[in-house]
Amino acid sequence: MSRTLSAAIIQQAWSGDAASMFAATQAAIRAAAAQGARLVLLQELHRGPYFCQVQDPQLHDLAEPIPGPSTTALGALAAELGVVIVASLFEARGPGISANTAAVLDADGRLAGIYRKMHIPQDPGFEEKFYFTPGDLGFQPIDTAVGRLGVLVCWDQWYPEAARLMALAGAEILCYPTAIGWNPDDDADEKARQLEAWVTVQRGHAVANGLSVLVANRVGHEADPSARSPGIAFWGNSFACGPQGEFLARADQQGETTLMVTLDLSRNAEVRRIWPFFRDRRIDAYGDLLQRWQGGRLLKRTP
Amino acid sequence: MSRTLSAAIIQQAWSGDAASMFAATQAAIRAAAAQGARLVLLQELHRGPYFCQVQDPQLHDLAEPIPGPSTTALGALAAELGVVIVASLFEARGPGISANTAAVLDADGRLAGIYRKMHIPQDPGFEEKFYFTPGDLGFQPIDTAVGRLGVLVCWDQWYPEAARLMALAGAEILCYPTAIGWNPDDDADEKARQLEAWVTVQRGHAVANGLSVLVANRVGHEADPSARSPGIAFWGNSFACGPQGEFLARADQQGETTLMVTLDLSRNAEVRRIWPFFRDRRIDAYGDLLQRWQGGRLLKRTP
Repeated sequence: MSRTLSAAIIQQAWSGDAASMFAATQAAIRAAAAQGARLVLLQELHRGPYFCQVQDPQLHDLAEPIPGPSTTALGALAAELGVVIVASLFEARGPGISANTAAVLDADGRLAGIYRKMHIPQDPGFEEKFYFTPGDLGFQPIDTAVGRLGVLVCWDQWYPEAARLMALAGAEILCYPTAIGWNPDDDADEKARQLEAWVTVQRGHAVANGLSVLVANRVGHEADPSARSPGIAFWGNSFACGPQGEFLARADQQGETTLMVTLDLSRNAEVRRIWPFFRDRRIDAYGDLLQRWQGGRLLKRTP
Repeated sequence: MSRTLSAAIIQQAWSGDAASMFAATQAAIRAAAAQGARLVLLQELHRGPYFCQVQDPQLHDLAEPIPGPSTTALGALAAELGVVIVASLFEARGPGISANTAAVLDADGRLAGIYRKMHIPQDPGFEEKFYFTPGDLGFQPIDTAVGRLGVLVCWDQWYPEAARLMALAGAEILCYPTAIGWNPDDDADEKARQLEAWVTVQRGHAVANGLSVLVANRVGHEADPSARSPGIAFWGNSFACGPQGEFLARADQQGETTLMVTLDLSRNAEVRRIWPFFRDRRIDAYGDLLQRWQGGRLLKRTP
């Protein structure tokens, strides 16, 4: 018996001001719901610009509590439309303690749960370790009216551990709000490799775990406020894939779009029966996954 | 400073008898070495047919000790040609205790090490749990004249844990001898999804771990000895990819071939510097990876 779910992935460009950006987001959610979406995934830090290009202590002013203004507004919209919304926010936890947090508003408007980004990047243009206290809630999926969601955020997408832990805890869909793009100075080959790597590793999570993956990425160029770099060309390419990694929908890098996709959640179980990877995990031999690095150890020569 | 390595991936069809098969394998190794290969990867259980389509206790007669006849012959060839050979063998360990084992012959002919397949499949046509005692050596790479090899076998390829553990232990290249194919009765769409899933998940390991991946698969149809199924159409498609998952070479499903590929091992470090995933692993929060399944647990609702 199939169990389908209509989902929407909203890919946006930064509008230049917070009010028009949030209005556009809400309008896109309404439009998606009108087309039948029951789950809506928003991109990373959708309320504003990707502000992490520079390190500026004043930017903690952008953070807000959760629950707070965004979850109140989005919760009301979720209840009105009867949709589940995955919203990525800059969470104010305390003085100098902010987090990159995804809030899930259930279809009745309540805050179903939050996920605080566990893996925090830090590289030129993505100065996230400066802003974001690492997540402290672990890899815990969130139950909603449309199913159990494994919400992860951006840099998490490179970590098979994160996907696996969500799947082991019963996640049926992985949802990745994302903000990733090119350094405009990189050559075309490097850009192509980076984009393809990003798509591939996430499709790989779908395959390894027998579940669907939804990814919402920002699109469009955002300037470096310090003008010391060419900024970031967010590469869009939001996509959805099924439990064999098969594409269900994919955006391009050209502009804003809402991807509408129908997931067949009953496929998860079908695929896991023909490829029962969970059955055969060697949990007796995975202990070293909890180690940082062992590359320098002396290897035994066997036999 | 780049550090390149010429590698060969040998994709073969079962010849119908062990003597001609091994002769063809040795000829292919010689030809690859003549073209400059210093590392040669052979497909899973290359000495014979893929015998696991049926469960027959007598087939343990096919197993041989390691060291044994195959490692002696291949070791001599490795030394003569100055190549490292990764050979997948059916290992006789004791009465009723056999293993699916990859032996690595170093460029001086010595047995550099072995890996015993850790994840053992069992499904119609792939009756491996009947034959193969699960590996007991863990995920330990093998040092050779051409670098530290993370040798894994077939079903292991679906497990991000296996790839990660090899990478954490310093593997520079993942090598997968493989025997995977289609059920000829499946429809074209399902076949396409399976092949693409298999390629994708392994490219994903390359991306997640910043290393090259080499895969040697069987090709061609092998009949079911019991005639109760249409047999297996091994899908070939052996391939090599670099540390961003980029294809370096790829075979088709049409027939036997030797893929020659030049790996730039210095790319591993370059890629890991721009995408330092190992730096940010949340080893404090990965403990549940050692659990079998938690899908039924009661979730806390946060906050």
